[in-house]
Amino acid sequence: MSICLNAKYLENFIKDYEFENIFPFIQKAHEIINNKTGAGNNFLGWLNLPVNYNKEEFERVVKAAEKIKKDSKVLVVIGIGGSYLGARAVIEALNSPMHNLLREDVPKIYFVGNSISPTYLNDIIKLCKDKDFSVNVISKSGTTTEPALAFRIFKKMLEDRYGEQGAKSRIYCTTDKEKGVLRSLALKNGYETFCVPDDVGGRFSVLTAVGLLAIAVSGLNVNRLMEGAAKAMADFSICDLNKNCCYKYAAIRNILHRKGKMVEMLVSYFPNLLLLGEWFKQLFGESEGKDGKGIFPASAIFSTDLHSLGQYIQEGSKILFETVINIKSPKEDFYIKQVEDNFDGLNFLANQNMGDIVQKVLKATVLAHTSGMVPNVILELERLSEFEVGYIIYFFEKACAMSGYLLGVNPFNQPGVESYKKNMFALLGKPGYENVRASILGNI
Amino acid sequence: MSICLNAKYLENFIKDYEFENIFPFIQKAHEIINNKTGAGNNFLGWLNLPVNYNKEEFERVVKAAEKIKKDSKVLVVIGIGGSYLGARAVIEALNSPMHNLLREDVPKIYFVGNSISPTYLNDIIKLCKDKDFSVNVISKSGTTTEPALAFRIFKKMLEDRYGEQGAKSRIYCTTDKEKGVLRSLALKNGYETFCVPDDVGGRFSVLTAVGLLAIAVSGLNVNRLMEGAAKAMADFSICDLNKNCCYKYAAIRNILHRKGKMVEMLVSYFPNLLLLGEWFKQLFGESEGKDGKGIFPASAIFSTDLHSLGQYIQEGSKILFETVINIKSPKEDFYIKQVEDNFDGLNFLANQNMGDIVQKVLKATVLAHTSGMVPNVILELERLSEFEVGYIIYFFEKACAMSGYLLGVNPFNQPGVESYKKNMFALLGKPGYENVRASILGNI
Repeated sequence: MSICLNAKYLENFIKDYEFENIFPFIQKAHEIINNKTGAGNNFLGWLNLPVNYNKEEFERVVKAAEKIKKDSKVLVVIGIGGSYLGARAVIEALNSPMHNLLREDVPKIYFVGNSISPTYLNDIIKLCKDKDFSVNVISKSGTTTEPALAFRIFKKMLEDRYGEQGAKSRIYCTTDKEKGVLRSLALKNGYETFCVPDDVGGRFSVLTAVGLLAIAVSGLNVNRLMEGAAKAMADFSICDLNKNCCYKYAAIRNILHRKGKMVEMLVSYFPNLLLLGEWFKQLFGESEGKDGKGIFPASAIFSTDLHSLGQYIQEGSKILFETVINIKSPKEDFYIKQVEDNFDGLNFLANQNMGDIVQKVLKATVLAHTSGMVPNVILELERLSEFEVGYIIYFFEKACAMSGYLLGVNPFNQPGVESYKKNMFALLGKPGYENVRASILGNI
Repeated sequence: MSICLNAKYLENFIKDYEFENIFPFIQKAHEIINNKTGAGNNFLGWLNLPVNYNKEEFERVVKAAEKIKKDSKVLVVIGIGGSYLGARAVIEALNSPMHNLLREDVPKIYFVGNSISPTYLNDIIKLCKDKDFSVNVISKSGTTTEPALAFRIFKKMLEDRYGEQGAKSRIYCTTDKEKGVLRSLALKNGYETFCVPDDVGGRFSVLTAVGLLAIAVSGLNVNRLMEGAAKAMADFSICDLNKNCCYKYAAIRNILHRKGKMVEMLVSYFPNLLLLGEWFKQLFGESEGKDGKGIFPASAIFSTDLHSLGQYIQEGSKILFETVINIKSPKEDFYIKQVEDNFDGLNFLANQNMGDIVQKVLKATVLAHTSGMVPNVILELERLSEFEVGYIIYFFEKACAMSGYLLGVNPFNQPGVESYKKNMFALLGKPGYENVRASILGNI
């Protein structure tokens, strides 16, 4: 199954010839991507990853997941940004946002090291109490503050619980293949290690060991995930706007942005796609938001947020367009029965599945928002399993690369993330930042 | 304790005389609010609510909460938009986003009827299985599709489990004081009922029975919540920008918006404020997003989202400003110890609490973002308990009213929410919508 891009509701916003006019630039960007001649071209490892991944490591990841499922009731995943968003998005999309409440057959999975909140940290420590647990720490350098701090704490907890030797078999490091403090420590202590590839940036890394270990522990089929991504890789290798909906989507974004649409809202009708929205926001925000440019990425779950953001979308500032993910068949449907006395007047909804109602609400909303001058593009999928999620991931990754090049930016760097870090290290007194410290202390 | 507005980092963005220039309009809007002469003036019930609430009903809410805590392991709260966001925001802020995993001493609280996802519904049904539960259904009319549908389902579950009589003592209706199908049904069946006041809109209703029952069931002190709001009500009754930081905040938003800032991002450093961000988004988005106007409301949790949206904020399109909520003392702190071999190079962080690190990261980030030309206004609080949350709620509510009038809109209606509903009823074949149906079927 693949994505079908429904552009019918864009007719009032984009003329056919606009696609013709942008196509030469799509072709050029396609060349730049394939020939690896563009900015950031040493970070194109995700491009062929779905077929060109390290099979030996993949098998070790699957084996490690099996071990964790056997010897642990909890997996603590330590990582920030691209080192947790992808895995969490996939797990919630395919299991449930409430997987830790619902499932007893697989370890509970808690993501830490993605904030510096002591309250949150204390909560997770409580949830690990008296439960067998393992740790997957994910950090290319090993020095990113939030995950490094969390690892220090959970490593100590493991050593206190299982002894130094026992802890070693419960720590899995996903890090640089050669350098960095985490690699050194893993070598010294004999932790099992997996690799964050050099040519795959954090936000593009979910289909590497970065994302796959936690996904596999959650009981999902990582082979199918890769197969879906591989299918997308094949489908989106063609440079033709009528046959490649990934490029068409990139074209649509670019055209709408040039018409003044500053915000893209990724919309879906299923609460389990909330974190996919967060992953999407990092992917596009970090790839495009530079040099004073870029569409601001937002996301929403409908109909939930129609009752909070719906008013703004319908009648507020005309700076938005919506990208709607439509999953036609829900994982589990719910049949609505007639009620004899029709006490709530809802019998007009009866004798059908909720999934069918979702389809009608989606259509109703697209019509309402487009008539409110908010362009809507719809990405349609028949269902959502591992295969489709792998497919979607690759769809957005490639659309993001195409979009970034069309926008004239390097889609693969993130120089702006360093600004706060530099100040932070200075204020925290990290050795080597004495000069920055002196220069900013006057500004506080 | 109250909010201190730190405007130091706005100096490069707003000149002092700009506050003087806007002040006459603040004064006018202040009059319009107090004299109830503006658009939507029949929805100003929230203004004096913190002192002028129904004490008899408040006591019944507290008693109902005590009963639910005794006879139920789960409270299912049915409501959408303002009928769930406020309660959920308060519960997560003061307990934890993971309260249902962490706490065994109070009922688990699940919010349903806020989407039409069958997958989500099935998940909650599983979580109620074999557990004693009660239902609080919140809907002014009783006919809003999502909560009405959920109530039909959970009412049936209660009746199947406890019999028709038994179910009656487990259903709590928060609805219109006189009319509507939910009121009729409650009267007929003898359900305990609470009132959605006529003069308080959904997004302003968290401090009525709409929010208070669930909040009380979660173990929080609703009296302190009201006291905090009452303190804010007194503090923000003065029309002076130097003494009323609520009005100052409204002035800042308005000034920045006129300079082209189209997006406000509410930022905090604590994952437990994620839902407060969602509540904020509804409050401001629904109040201001009309007549083609309005700041687009967004929210983020740092440092988490510094690793996803940070790049965009720092170097992307200059359409953003940030409103930073700083809670100076966390609920529970965490002390970082030295590690002998300093294997991770993090000893520069040791011998201090994480709460202190948060303060430094916050400062570092504000400096980085303002130097990236993103204005930052900081709302500082010493700590976060029920009192402060009540205070914050009122702060934002009044700032929203002031902002809406300054923008020239009716801050209290939401006409645009009806557009998708009309189409939806037409497509779903609701009686009375036959003409709309005929007219839109051609457009699909």
